[in-house]
Amino acid sequence: MKDFLDLADLSDERLDTVLRLARELEARPVGDALRGRTVGLLFMNPSVRTLASMQAAVTQQGGQTFVVTPGSGSWKMETRSGAVMDGEAAEHVSEAIPVLAQYADLLGVRCFAEGRNLDHDLEDALIHTMARLCPKPFVNLESARAHPCQALADWKTLDDLAIPRKGGRFVLSWAWHPKALPYAVPSSALEMAARRGMDVTVLRPDGFALPAAVMDRAKAIATRSGGSIVETCDRELAMSGAHALYAKSWSSSAFYGQPAEEAALRAPLRNEWCVRESWFKPSLPDARFLHCLPVRRNIKVADEVLDGPRSVVIRQAGNRMHAQKALIIEMLGGNKT
Amino acid sequence: MKDFLDLADLSDERLDTVLRLARELEARPVGDALRGRTVGLLFMNPSVRTLASMQAAVTQQGGQTFVVTPGSGSWKMETRSGAVMDGEAAEHVSEAIPVLAQYADLLGVRCFAEGRNLDHDLEDALIHTMARLCPKPFVNLESARAHPCQALADWKTLDDLAIPRKGGRFVLSWAWHPKALPYAVPSSALEMAARRGMDVTVLRPDGFALPAAVMDRAKAIATRSGGSIVETCDRELAMSGAHALYAKSWSSSAFYGQPAEEAALRAPLRNEWCVRESWFKPSLPDARFLHCLPVRRNIKVADEVLDGPRSVVIRQAGNRMHAQKALIIEMLGGNKT
Amino acid sequence: MKDFLDLADLSDERLDTVLRLARELEARPVGDALRGRTVGLLFMNPSVRTLASMQAAVTQQGGQTFVVTPGSGSWKMETRSGAVMDGEAAEHVSEAIPVLAQYADLLGVRCFAEGRNLDHDLEDALIHTMARLCPKPFVNLESARAHPCQALADWKTLDDLAIPRKGGRFVLSWAWHPKALPYAVPSSALEMAARRGMDVTVLRPDGFALPAAVMDRAKAIATRSGGSIVETCDRELAMSGAHALYAKSWSSSAFYGQPAEEAALRAPLRNEWCVRESWFKPSLPDARFLHCLPVRRNIKVADEVLDGPRSVVIRQAGNRMHAQKALIIEMLGGNKT
Repeated sequence: MKDFLDLADLSDERLDTVLRLARELEARPVGDALRGRTVGLLFMNPSVRTLASMQAAVTQQGGQTFVVTPGSGSWKMETRSGAVMDGEAAEHVSEAIPVLAQYADLLGVRCFAEGRNLDHDLEDALIHTMARLCPKPFVNLESARAHPCQALADWKTLDDLAIPRKGGRFVLSWAWHPKALPYAVPSSALEMAARRGMDVTVLRPDGFALPAAVMDRAKAIATRSGGSIVETCDRELAMSGAHALYAKSWSSSAFYGQPAEEAALRAPLRNEWCVRESWFKPSLPDARFLHCLPVRRNIKVADEVLDGPRSVVIRQAGNRMHAQKALIIEMLGGNKT
Repeated sequence: MKDFLDLADLSDERLDTVLRLARELEARPVGDALRGRTVGLLFMNPSVRTLASMQAAVTQQGGQTFVVTPGSGSWKMETRSGAVMDGEAAEHVSEAIPVLAQYADLLGVRCFAEGRNLDHDLEDALIHTMARLCPKPFVNLESARAHPCQALADWKTLDDLAIPRKGGRFVLSWAWHPKALPYAVPSSALEMAARRGMDVTVLRPDGFALPAAVMDRAKAIATRSGGSIVETCDRELAMSGAHALYAKSWSSSAFYGQPAEEAALRAPLRNEWCVRESWFKPSLPDARFLHCLPVRRNIKVADEVLDGPRSVVIRQAGNRMHAQKALIIEMLGGNKT
Repeated sequence: MKDFLDLADLSDERLDTVLRLARELEARPVGDALRGRTVGLLFMNPSVRTLASMQAAVTQQGGQTFVVTPGSGSWKMETRSGAVMDGEAAEHVSEAIPVLAQYADLLGVRCFAEGRNLDHDLEDALIHTMARLCPKPFVNLESARAHPCQALADWKTLDDLAIPRKGGRFVLSWAWHPKALPYAVPSSALEMAARRGMDVTVLRPDGFALPAAVMDRAKAIATRSGGSIVETCDRELAMSGAHALYAKSWSSSAFYGQPAEEAALRAPLRNEWCVRESWFKPSLPDARFLHCLPVRRNIKVADEVLDGPRSVVIRQAGNRMHAQKALIIEMLGGNKT
């Protein structure tokens, strides 16, 4: 496996290997499995967890990292093929990626959706282009459509909490947010739960159904794994017997790239779609609350949930480091001595 | 000691240990006392010395670091409890601190005063909140009211120069600056000199007395250590027989959070309160000039002082690394192998 | 050699040593020649290659780095001697350089031309001042007039490609760019090719001759090395029999510091001075295309050239790491154990 662009890039066997290694590394975090290895990190968008957990993952295993942040100390970068570069961007990823790859054994790249054209973003063409430009192993640190390192960490979190694969009830719920957000996290969370064989419900208001391309792919995964996917606007129904609620906001696909219209559709949902403790009445008593972070408190989720015993968001974030450490060791196949 | 939020967090015995270790590490800077250790650094405000000296301190002893800078490559962060996060901040420190703590053995955090409410800033509530949110050892890299790593370095600098503890005359002088600045450095320098048992004079213009809470606390420290604290507007008197002048600007407490009124009070003091060589006429001939840096040349201090033989500002900054190296080794108690 | 400010700082013997070591390090990139060594990197201007390749160079040899970026997480810095610092800059390089030098065994600093006064920029006074302020070895990471790490990498690239020293035909061509750019890269490329003993042609439109100070110095170098330098506006003539075309944009010296007038002179040259495949008709069939990067695609160079077999820009960038690794090892003289 040269590239990890999507959870689907890991075969079942390799996924098991990575999850098992992640558990072992959680118990003994420091080692030299990456001695002599350099991991380059390119962030086209802001980051806290990914930035810190990737660096810690690599250096705790004896490797080293460098970070490049276009627009914050580094040149702004152009991504469009054939662009006539007379604007702000001084460098094209067609140079930046192969150049940085020469300084590293593996590159990790974050590049969010542009949010203008739905089909374009759902194709996730840019991260695939960057991976092709990179002759070294390549890890997606969140692209237009996928956040597979988050999906790995989420999977491990559900395992840690002994939430069942078969028969586990997983709710992916839309939540209000002041901006129209991309599909990367909901898409990856959905595919993760589907592949884990869970019974998944997508809970969202009218007008905020996930795009057909996202749902169809997740349903195909669920079919293979023996799980199921349904969607509904009925919170009571969705939460009934749930083991876990995963909250995330995403754009209305009908008004994708039309911020004013999208905001008008979203505006009246503000209070109704902030996750509160009352949402969990129909769930299992110890149902868990998950979120990829960062989260806007009292906008997407009330303090009472985040600060209460259901919330496992800190553990999810902790698992980012363990999962990425395992992934990179698996991808690089040991240290260089 | 889980947290180092203030010089007072170090007992006399531990302070001696840290200062002795800092001297040893100055002589042999490279080692492996932090092998396998990760130090996370969160900067809510700009930094040069702290950023560089913390990284060098940790990596020269075999450890590793990561840096997170909200607003510059990372999400802006909310700090207020109960906030409804519909503004610019995408992440709350209630998540960020425990998340980052999972990737590190120790966190260092910089978070300056807000400059709106005097009592609030003097309580230094935010850094205490962040330390409580952090299950790992925590170091204050400058908060609303304290800059204890600077105080450690300053103490070592005075020791290096053989400036006496008992009977040493230390002048903390206000200096002009284009902006109203917080009390962190003057407060920490004052407490450091008081605890060192020195005779301290606070020299400042009318209207720029340090807040009572700062003075009272420092006086109590002086009483315990056998030192003394007085304040005056009379430069001749203050500098008489002085061993050291420590310059710093700070806001008028009477107009705290009222920038226009504060600036009007400060404006006429501009030239008068720029430290010049002539200030040192009444002092001991080899009296030293100290400043925490960064310093605005020819505004707070004239080139003739900074570039002359009295200035020990570079040594102070050098001692940041030695002192922090010793502190972190003492806090983490050796390497992890 | 304490400082590497310019290719001329390396004697012929040392230059050979560095180039030989660079080749060896390309073959075995990981080692411990810099174990226990700290390299501080100060970037007053944006960077991608230098930022990443310096960090990788040092850490792959067992050393460590820290990065300070004024204006992006760090205080803005004043560089003018005698400045009255009541503007945006909170810190002066007179403090910053000696302070950072205490945390490191070597400092690397990037500080571009100001672009206001031609003579001032060509004197390259600032980087020399900063090197003098630094008691430790000091490396120029691109100054007003020189980019010697790029020159080292370019020399190695020409060697890698077996482009002859004696008799090799090297064309340095002006190319269009939306902004007036400094002379650092063209000046260093010109001196590199001259010192390598090549026959150099500077190809540029009327009004864009390189300043006499740049040309004179390069001609003196060519005379010593047995090479030659001519300049022309005639592309056919310049490219005839060429082994290599090195493209770069630079300001008109007649309108240096007058952006509007300079832009008016440059505007009509836009399409004519974008390097295309047709430029290479008179060259040797396998003539190479070089550029220091970043490059604006379809503005300075057409995709057909950058994506074709002539382009060695990625290799040039890769050689940055190998050359800098060799340079730093040579400057620091081995590890500290």
